[in-house]
Amino acid sequence: MLEKQLIESNNGVYNCWLNYAKCLNPKLVDQYKKICSCLVVNNNNTVKHTAVEELKLALKMIIGIEPLVSNEIPNSSYLFVGTLEDARAFQLETKITEKYADGSYEVKAADNEQNTALQIIGKDGTGVLYGIFYLIRNLRIGKEISQSQIVDIPRNKLRMINHWDNASGDIERGYAGQSFFYSNDEIIKNFSRIKDYARLLGSIGINGVVINNVNVHNIETKFITKEYLPDIARFADVFRNYGIKLYLSINYASPIELGGLKTADPLDEAVKQWWKKTADLIYDYIPDFGGFLVKADSEGRPGPFTYERNHAQGANVLAEALKPHGGIVIWRCFVYNCHLDWRDRSLDRAKAAYDNFKPLDGEFMDNVILQVKNGPMDFQIREAVSPLFGAMEKTNMILEFQAAQEYTGQQKHVCYLLPMWKEVLNFDTHAKGEGSYVSKVVDGSLFNSRYSGIVAVSNLGDSKCWTGHPLAQANLYGIGRIAWNPELSSEEIAKEWVKLTYGCDEGIVQTVVSILMESREVYEKYTSPLGIGWMVNPNYHYGPSVEGYEYSRWGTYHYADWKGIGVDRTVSTGTGYTAQYHEAVASMYENIETCPEALLLFFHHVPYKYQLKTGKTLIQHIYDTHFEGVEKVEEFIEKWMSLKGKINEEAFGLVCDRLRIQLKDSKEWRDQVNTYFYRRTGIKDIKGRKIYE
Amino acid sequence: MLEKQLIESNNGVYNCWLNYAKCLNPKLVDQYKKICSCLVVNNNNTVKHTAVEELKLALKMIIGIEPLVSNEIPNSSYLFVGTLEDARAFQLETKITEKYADGSYEVKAADNEQNTALQIIGKDGTGVLYGIFYLIRNLRIGKEISQSQIVDIPRNKLRMINHWDNASGDIERGYAGQSFFYSNDEIIKNFSRIKDYARLLGSIGINGVVINNVNVHNIETKFITKEYLPDIARFADVFRNYGIKLYLSINYASPIELGGLKTADPLDEAVKQWWKKTADLIYDYIPDFGGFLVKADSEGRPGPFTYERNHAQGANVLAEALKPHGGIVIWRCFVYNCHLDWRDRSLDRAKAAYDNFKPLDGEFMDNVILQVKNGPMDFQIREAVSPLFGAMEKTNMILEFQAAQEYTGQQKHVCYLLPMWKEVLNFDTHAKGEGSYVSKVVDGSLFNSRYSGIVAVSNLGDSKCWTGHPLAQANLYGIGRIAWNPELSSEEIAKEWVKLTYGCDEGIVQTVVSILMESREVYEKYTSPLGIGWMVNPNYHYGPSVEGYEYSRWGTYHYADWKGIGVDRTVSTGTGYTAQYHEAVASMYENIETCPEALLLFFHHVPYKYQLKTGKTLIQHIYDTHFEGVEKVEEFIEKWMSLKGKINEEAFGLVCDRLRIQLKDSKEWRDQVNTYFYRRTGIKDIKGRKIYE
Repeated sequence: MLEKQLIESNNGVYNCWLNYAKCLNPKLVDQYKKICSCLVVNNNNTVKHTAVEELKLALKMIIGIEPLVSNEIPNSSYLFVGTLEDARAFQLETKITEKYADGSYEVKAADNEQNTALQIIGKDGTGVLYGIFYLIRNLRIGKEISQSQIVDIPRNKLRMINHWDNASGDIERGYAGQSFFYSNDEIIKNFSRIKDYARLLGSIGINGVVINNVNVHNIETKFITKEYLPDIARFADVFRNYGIKLYLSINYASPIELGGLKTADPLDEAVKQWWKKTADLIYDYIPDFGGFLVKADSEGRPGPFTYERNHAQGANVLAEALKPHGGIVIWRCFVYNCHLDWRDRSLDRAKAAYDNFKPLDGEFMDNVILQVKNGPMDFQIREAVSPLFGAMEKTNMILEFQAAQEYTGQQKHVCYLLPMWKEVLNFDTHAKGEGSYVSKVVDGSLFNSRYSGIVAVSNLGDSKCWTGHPLAQANLYGIGRIAWNPELSSEEIAKEWVKLTYGCDEGIVQTVVSILMESREVYEKYTSPLGIGWMVNPNYHYGPSVEGYEYSRWGTYHYADWKGIGVDRTVSTGTGYTAQYHEAVASMYENIETCPEALLLFFHHVPYKYQLKTGKTLIQHIYDTHFEGVEKVEEFIEKWMSLKGKINEEAFGLVCDRLRIQLKDSKEWRDQVNTYFYRRTGIKDIKGRKIYE
Repeated sequence: MLEKQLIESNNGVYNCWLNYAKCLNPKLVDQYKKICSCLVVNNNNTVKHTAVEELKLALKMIIGIEPLVSNEIPNSSYLFVGTLEDARAFQLETKITEKYADGSYEVKAADNEQNTALQIIGKDGTGVLYGIFYLIRNLRIGKEISQSQIVDIPRNKLRMINHWDNASGDIERGYAGQSFFYSNDEIIKNFSRIKDYARLLGSIGINGVVINNVNVHNIETKFITKEYLPDIARFADVFRNYGIKLYLSINYASPIELGGLKTADPLDEAVKQWWKKTADLIYDYIPDFGGFLVKADSEGRPGPFTYERNHAQGANVLAEALKPHGGIVIWRCFVYNCHLDWRDRSLDRAKAAYDNFKPLDGEFMDNVILQVKNGPMDFQIREAVSPLFGAMEKTNMILEFQAAQEYTGQQKHVCYLLPMWKEVLNFDTHAKGEGSYVSKVVDGSLFNSRYSGIVAVSNLGDSKCWTGHPLAQANLYGIGRIAWNPELSSEEIAKEWVKLTYGCDEGIVQTVVSILMESREVYEKYTSPLGIGWMVNPNYHYGPSVEGYEYSRWGTYHYADWKGIGVDRTVSTGTGYTAQYHEAVASMYENIETCPEALLLFFHHVPYKYQLKTGKTLIQHIYDTHFEGVEKVEEFIEKWMSLKGKINEEAFGLVCDRLRIQLKDSKEWRDQVNTYFYRRTGIKDIKGRKIYE
């Protein structure tokens, strides 16, 4: 089934980076064939079984062999595949110990004269799976493997995908079609796509998936009942084979809506008992259930505030219920007043998450994890890093990115998000002095957290290429890789993805990587300048509308007037937001001279004639970047067209279609934004380019 | 049934102006009782039968009598009720002749010593009905009737309501609940509300109703098939009793979608035959079917343009099919390019209807009527009158008003529209020199048209008071009255409505009428200034968003920049729209000095410091009106509160609720609009009131 699909499906479309068309380095095929001719394996573990099947498939397709499977180490070439336990049974040495993180693995050349023996030793079954996918990547790209000596340990314990899929089949902020979990208020019957999805996730180290939207509606509320759990458990079964735990978003009002209680007060004894009973029930069906994701007291969702309880009290009642089963509660920090008054410029939505959660540091149970969006606003093309990362020493935290391109081109525009995500991970919170990077907060090392990790909101749907825009696959690939190892550069990840997806041809790799690497900045250029964000059509979040959110209740303002633009978030004259950072960072942002210009309008209200470090005025910078952005899209198209005939036709065409949309729509952005500022200021472009009156 | 409902329902809520609680002038009750003690009637006509039943009900409830019914004229007091034919049979003299318009009636005192005999003679059954409702109005208000000597002739042949109800039960631009025709893609089963609706319409002279939305979706497309016609015919039966013809909006692509043809080309022989067959079928079910309403080639609807045919060709194929049955085609002129480029300031949506239809004058069959919105844009709180009214000498035209308050407060704000409608009717097109009023175009007298009239888009839904806002009932009442007689003043109509609905107490009448009469101007004050329109949230059309439509594809711009605001529609420097009017009008608008200031920004781009005739600058006018608007709403509330205990509690409360919303939202409008212009200009309010920065 799988194999047939892989062959039939177009490379780089449905099969994404698991494109096993052929080995890309013919010189090494003989070496590979030797090493892999005999698999030594003791097939006694579910995930290991999956791993071996994946390996067999890859070997067949990439180098055309069907290996002998043995349970003894031969004298000649071989590939050992096993867990730490297996390694001990076979009396193999390994650096892996029980102390290593789950999923760790070692790949090493064995002591064999022709260098044609290799051992893949996982700490556990999942480690074996990851080791196998490591090997497959190398086989496909055509890397020398006979000298391997690596130990690979996942840096982050939780590496997750959040789906915002609704039972209706719609996906909130979905830009790649409908849900592949649900359709018309029912759970889908055919699981073949789910299995292919689990493979994709497993191959990049993802180990958790939340399969329903954080906004939990009527039907999804019932997912934790006997009516739905049998079906939900079937999803868990599929994911389990690939080392992935299933989580559910829950409705905080469930005790009322499902349990018939009069309250969902977390301190109410009946409510506590109800959650306990419910957790027990869930684990009857799914013994390795991951836990709950909760959006509470946010954007109209129910939560503990209703009962005058705080978030810690709110989360702990769930955590207590899950704890005996090893489950966790992931509690989102996207909590803010969404009925702000635009008239009051002292109000600042950016301050909300910190204000709400900082006072509760230390009050959460140890199986509660706070899920914090990368920025304090909402996944803008550029915004500051959330100050919460440096603020919660005694609380588990997981970092939330959004692969779904809600504000970043909605998978019509190419926008490779790894450079942005790396910026966030490399941001120095100074929480424990210099070097207190966000990456160290979220991998748990800085504050010695019990749970931590990285999560991305899914950019997937039922589109043939999964992500609508084929190049958006790189963001999914990247989230897995960066969650595994935040030290990988965005360019390394891009290269790896392009090679696996479209092949190793230098021209292809260079071209696609160069588009990807520039794409975020290009999108930023023709949209909202210097960290101010928004300026999009309300609700849809696509297309320019400079004043679209200006007088809204959402706290999303740019305050452009006849003199200048920007949000003054300083302590001295503004909202005081900068004080949420540790001193070194706070003073950098506070002072307009030291504030990074990319975030200038995020932190300061700046006159149009303010001179930037480039020597340009702010207004001229706005004009220039908007013209440049469109020119860059034209360059992208030219570059992409040069690949015609070189990569899979369908993928090529899909990208072409989207680039054309991107060009058309980037022009609209350019013209509206430029005209807006021209109408505001009456200041002409010094280069005399066309700005409509 | 009816009677029970009338008693149970709250006065001025469900029963609207047919509030028969008691006679409001006790002094005249004896006179009424005498005159009405004996009804002379020959009950041989459906509508006349309805009329008599209505009369009996009213007599019972208003003056508490059950009259004797006789088919002979007695020597003593009597009330004769009959058609022209009846009058002749009884050898009564009457001024009514066959030449009078359908629905005409005479009410006159008979030659009787005590002045206690009255004759109501209708040209036809409908005329009798209208005469009866005339009498009921007078009985309720308590007017002297014994000396009556009136002949009342409807000025407009067609007096219609258009429903934008969808089979789903939703109403496009509906602000009074769900449809009372359909629910969940089915036609409703219980017709009692339909009957009450027919009474309301019949009582104000409405004689046509289109029961489905001009945007015709899947299910409504099938209303002209055997599957739905039996149910549609049941609606027609109910309306027929009150002299109202039923019309349907049709889908121009029906020959394809229903007929299985490959084309809907109006010149295709198979298409012609299909429409003929379809018309025949409809008349089998509804022998007095009114005809079709068509929105074609407009906002994405199908139409003749698809086949490179013009609107005349498009309409005539339908007209031919309906003609043998006496049916008509009402063809909407709301045709414009809704993909305009905001960059091109020479484009002007206001010009579209004229440009599209003027060249076709004389090409339409004589049973085609063009339906023209009052203004060239789209039902704004103030805009110019459509130049088409003066431009189509050889074409039937009907004037479309919108009672649904899409852009005029959505039935949350009180906005009595009669003053605006009167302005339109009194507008002098100069088509045949001075005095060529729109009212004379639409009553058919100016161009000697065969069909003509006035239509309003319904403001009704399943809300208990029909219109959501109880005071919005006045607009429905008004449309009937003004379509009957465009000479009635908006104040007369308001007074009549208040008396019938809430009683004749001088305080009540004065208070409510004063609110109604000011309400349109008040709404205008705090929304968009001087005819510029829009400035609302896209799609919803409610709430301020000054730039909401500024860069859209809808052709709805105000072009505000740092110097000024407005659309230059002059011939000399602008879009040339003014040339669509006849000379006297064109030159008035062309010149900023003679252009009525209420429409200043509709016709001219004006600097913020331009001095208005009041001596104020434009910017100060904007500030002043926005402050005044809110103050006026506060006044409305004070006035309304003075009625507490004087009028029906439920109606009082419903209005209170809405006035509170109006106050809150008018403040939002005031503040956003003022801040917008302050941020634009940096010019302060000379009175130093609070404008947020």
